[in-house]
Amino acid sequence: GIPATVLSVSICVCRASSIQEDSAMENIVTEKKVEESHRQDSADLLIFIMLLTLTILTIWLFKHRRFRFLHETGLAMIYGVLVGVVLRYGIHVPRDISNVTMSCHVNASPATLLVNVSGKFYEYTLKGEIGANEVNDVQDNEMLRKVTFDPEVFFNILLPPIIFHAGYSLKRRHFFRNMGSILAYAFLGTVVSCFVIGLLMYGCVLLMKQVGQLGGDFFFTDCLFFGAIVSATDPVTVLAIFNELQVDVDLYALLFGESVLNDAVAVILSSSIVAYQPQGDNSHTFEVMALLKSFGMFLGVFSGSFALGVATGVVTFTKLRDFPLLETALFFLMSWSTFLLAEACGFTGVVAVLFCGITQAHYTFNNLSPDSQDRTKQLFELLNFLAENFIFSYMGLALFTFQSHIFNPMFIVGAFVAVFLGRAANIYPLSLLLNLGRRNKITSNFQHMMMFAGLRGAMTFALSIRDTATYARQMMFTTTLLVVFFTVWICGGGTTQMLSCQHIRVGVDSDQDNPVSVALVSITEGSERRSTKQESAWLFRIWYNFDHNYLKPILTHSVTFISVCVSNNPLPSHQNECQLKDDDSDLILTDGDINLTYGDITVSTDASGSHTSGGPAFAGAATSDDLDRELTYGDHELVMRGTRLVLPMDDSEPPFTDPHHRMRM
Amino acid sequence: GIPATVLSVSICVCRASSIQEDSAMENIVTEKKVEESHRQDSADLLIFIMLLTLTILTIWLFKHRRFRFLHETGLAMIYGVLVGVVLRYGIHVPRDISNVTMSCHVNASPATLLVNVSGKFYEYTLKGEIGANEVNDVQDNEMLRKVTFDPEVFFNILLPPIIFHAGYSLKRRHFFRNMGSILAYAFLGTVVSCFVIGLLMYGCVLLMKQVGQLGGDFFFTDCLFFGAIVSATDPVTVLAIFNELQVDVDLYALLFGESVLNDAVAVILSSSIVAYQPQGDNSHTFEVMALLKSFGMFLGVFSGSFALGVATGVVTFTKLRDFPLLETALFFLMSWSTFLLAEACGFTGVVAVLFCGITQAHYTFNNLSPDSQDRTKQLFELLNFLAENFIFSYMGLALFTFQSHIFNPMFIVGAFVAVFLGRAANIYPLSLLLNLGRRNKITSNFQHMMMFAGLRGAMTFALSIRDTATYARQMMFTTTLLVVFFTVWICGGGTTQMLSCQHIRVGVDSDQDNPVSVALVSITEGSERRSTKQESAWLFRIWYNFDHNYLKPILTHSVTFISVCVSNNPLPSHQNECQLKDDDSDLILTDGDINLTYGDITVSTDASGSHTSGGPAFAGAATSDDLDRELTYGDHELVMRGTRLVLPMDDSEPPFTDPHHRMRM
Repeated sequence: GIPATVLSVSICVCRASSIQEDSAMENIVTEKKVEESHRQDSADLLIFIMLLTLTILTIWLFKHRRFRFLHETGLAMIYGVLVGVVLRYGIHVPRDISNVTMSCHVNASPATLLVNVSGKFYEYTLKGEIGANEVNDVQDNEMLRKVTFDPEVFFNILLPPIIFHAGYSLKRRHFFRNMGSILAYAFLGTVVSCFVIGLLMYGCVLLMKQVGQLGGDFFFTDCLFFGAIVSATDPVTVLAIFNELQVDVDLYALLFGESVLNDAVAVILSSSIVAYQPQGDNSHTFEVMALLKSFGMFLGVFSGSFALGVATGVVTFTKLRDFPLLETALFFLMSWSTFLLAEACGFTGVVAVLFCGITQAHYTFNNLSPDSQDRTKQLFELLNFLAENFIFSYMGLALFTFQSHIFNPMFIVGAFVAVFLGRAANIYPLSLLLNLGRRNKITSNFQHMMMFAGLRGAMTFALSIRDTATYARQMMFTTTLLVVFFTVWICGGGTTQMLSCQHIRVGVDSDQDNPVSVALVSITEGSERRSTKQESAWLFRIWYNFDHNYLKPILTHSVTFISVCVSNNPLPSHQNECQLKDDDSDLILTDGDINLTYGDITVSTDASGSHTSGGPAFAGAATSDDLDRELTYGDHELVMRGTRLVLPMDDSEPPFTDPHHRMRM
Repeated sequence: GIPATVLSVSICVCRASSIQEDSAMENIVTEKKVEESHRQDSADLLIFIMLLTLTILTIWLFKHRRFRFLHETGLAMIYGVLVGVVLRYGIHVPRDISNVTMSCHVNASPATLLVNVSGKFYEYTLKGEIGANEVNDVQDNEMLRKVTFDPEVFFNILLPPIIFHAGYSLKRRHFFRNMGSILAYAFLGTVVSCFVIGLLMYGCVLLMKQVGQLGGDFFFTDCLFFGAIVSATDPVTVLAIFNELQVDVDLYALLFGESVLNDAVAVILSSSIVAYQPQGDNSHTFEVMALLKSFGMFLGVFSGSFALGVATGVVTFTKLRDFPLLETALFFLMSWSTFLLAEACGFTGVVAVLFCGITQAHYTFNNLSPDSQDRTKQLFELLNFLAENFIFSYMGLALFTFQSHIFNPMFIVGAFVAVFLGRAANIYPLSLLLNLGRRNKITSNFQHMMMFAGLRGAMTFALSIRDTATYARQMMFTTTLLVVFFTVWICGGGTTQMLSCQHIRVGVDSDQDNPVSVALVSITEGSERRSTKQESAWLFRIWYNFDHNYLKPILTHSVTFISVCVSNNPLPSHQNECQLKDDDSDLILTDGDINLTYGDITVSTDASGSHTSGGPAFAGAATSDDLDRELTYGDHELVMRGTRLVLPMDDSEPPFTDPHHRMRM
């Protein structure tokens, strides 16, 4: 290292040091200054609000006209880019001379600095490091720097509602059905992707060093860090289109589940890599021990965050049924405190909040009054919408207003190739492995679709903007922005084309207004489900039994459901089981889901003729008779529920059903 | 003034300047430091979340058991005080040595400071001034200073939703009925109160100077400023109890209307006084010209904020009926952008947001889809609830954690006397004057109740914490806190006792489950309303006609209502008038209001026998025949609406009704 023991003190006062006015005068000047700065802040924030307003109005227009080529997030980015260009090149605000800065050369950068101005002490807080080349520009680009938010805002304010909403709106039935595959993609896949991208980028960086294209340090850990942050997929655009076009629910569940969980994996992976970073300058190499330590940290942080999220999710026993306002407020505060608690404990807030959301949707949601259920859903929906669009429009803005962009064409090209190959190394080999175990195979067109739907979004951006101090990080940030733009615009915009190109069926998960396809799906799904359940049975079954026999009855108070079930089921032992089905069906957040829930039950009257059709295939794997009972008593349930939704299904369907049924098996 | 031309530069580096490590090492240290600080921030914020959670749970208990002696805000303050005591005396966090501060003696305090640490530049931002006596404590009380928020947070984040909600939930029918009196109390009364308190405090300060109790400068403008900030009443506790006990609606309207508007008056008054502050040290005296300028500024800022609020409220033409999420988001963003726009223009955001709320409730609300109407109401209700409880618990906390308290017993006693007399000088003389013009007198027990209900709350606190730099401001802040505590706990807690002591009727504004009293109130209110309307007729009538004939039909799209009315009213000229009644009735946010709305209409069949009973008394003041027509066609309307709520009223009521009717006249 450079042994620099600098203690040079030199204050360059840019303002002409005129005769010092009296304190009253100075107070007024300070007040005026503060007021002016406050006014400027408001104007800056107004830019973002206007951007969001514009986005909303355009989204409305698009939805109204059923344009699907551009999602709201893509749109927000475009507006952000436009405003960024205007701010960068269009506006030159003449700065007040009293706003100038001064420099103290000192030998440390404490978090708090006290400045003594003629006997008065002013407190300054550390904002961050500024690149040496920017020091002279501080004056000019104050406007641009003003619209640059503190990166922690993204992590602490904007990301939690998005992640929570993802957890909260997870369609648990489909999620748990494909749990094995989702976990494989999210954990194994993300780690594979991280290392593949990291290694490819390290190759690229070495090449750049050879060619002389590298302008600063870029260590292997930086490459791995880059791999981690761009491994977080966020197919919000794709999923919105899937939802609209009612694409296959299993594909939806795989993509959504993977994207939700790999955010958690990526954030912990990146922080583990930072922690793995060596202590000295010369040790930026690969060390097995440090890697193991890092891996241990990954597991520790993950399980800690997971446990914390689940714990607070479960703890929120709301019994304030008579006061929806209090209930909603409590629900909101508990979710937020999960985040804060995790951060305060040194865990990862977003992971905790994700599992808190999943747990709350599973247990706490049932305890809420119907009014509060609506309120919380709508509240988190709104927060998610605002936060997401804000982040994406900020991304667009940052392309032009961020001060330390390093556009390195070679690195960018390398990154695009690496991201593509990393995604491929995640999806294809894992799908191959998973298909060995899955009865309901992940077909190659599904694999291509998942490959294509590997958009990068809010999490990748938030991780990359968190630290832009070094050369490596700045280059990463610029490249990450471009990756996000490309994937959101090109891959997001081409989703419908890709769907039709891959011949993936749409209109599968349809509403009640299309009774034929409901019944049709019910049956195919039913048979599929049995087989899927079988392959992930060992994991699913243990959890399922424990949860539904012990946790749910304790943690939810669905007394009315129990009594209904008891009256229908003469056997008291089926009481819990009966209750859980009801709970599951009213847990689900979007109406498309309800069809499937009932679809599962209609299995017992499907094309195969009798309700024992699934029995033999099942008996082998069944360690508990719980699921069997579920099937056996399925038509008993049907009597109770048939009036609601399953009515369209009658015997005229089999001709339509059978081909599909066979094709999918 | 003191001609001090200090340019002494001396950096006291508290940390032992060891051998400078290499840059990588330093990066890691910085990262660790940032992480530690971030963890601490999360823990600090968690304290507040826990406080709020605790408050909610206790409120629920109180509501459940129908305790009325302590409102949620009072409770939040108590919890805040308890936690404040613990933080102050209970916790001693050993501080990391690397967190120490250093001092640069320079001759200016720019907003941004650049610090050069061995070639790297770090940016620091101005946080604020620190009292000279605290400089040595900076180290020790960092924990306490951490839980002290930036005062601007209150103004920019917490206050807007509270004020907006107040405007949004204003019961416009009652508000406009008593508009004259409310405006008198809010504008004239607040100014009177401000000057009375200011003059009394100036006397008190002069006395203190004589006795030698004053430890610093305290100018006349400071006294006026104090008068302005403690003139903002916030009877949230009282109004909650009024709502629960269903106290007389006119009293409710007077108190609520006054408190909403006097917040606006107080905030502009205080900023005008700051602007009035003289330019030199020796001119802290009273100047007529400066006062006029200040008054002009008051009017300018008020009308600017008002116009802006109304304009953006009106502009929010939402036609996104099919997308409640977009609609709600747009509504929320427009409300917030009103605030920011006003601040950016140099107006007062809270005033703009107040009138934006009133306007949006009046016009935009009708354009929303029913789903969005619920969503926006619930959203703003939740935001208001959280912000209010946060502010009050923060107040409790600040009593012990704020670092620059100046408890001056003489000033505090003086302030309590001044606040009491100031409120009296507002209510009693104005009521006397208003009663000369009002037919429906403000009785003396109402006056006493209004006097008693002059609680101080969120606005007073936010105004006083905004600037605590000088000795005067610090003493004001401490005193303000005590005034708020006293009024919220003692006056708020004694509301029910005061109500029964003053023999003010409760259970007036009852629900449908008490049909007799509904009918009873309908009639008394009906006759009262006619008389009230008459006295404020000149103001009310002009606005009413303009609004209902031109603005409403243009700004709202209640097509269905129009068509219903047209079919009932053969005369096409009554179309608008008919529509407006429907709009008015569905605008109102709480159900208690609906009774009154219908009560107004049932006038035409009241105890006096015929629907022309109100006619003669009315004809004198009537400049337009609009209101007459409203009465004439009242029973026509009744046919259409009678099935809904007015059914309980039949001819068996007069014996009950007459005494009240006479008593109130």
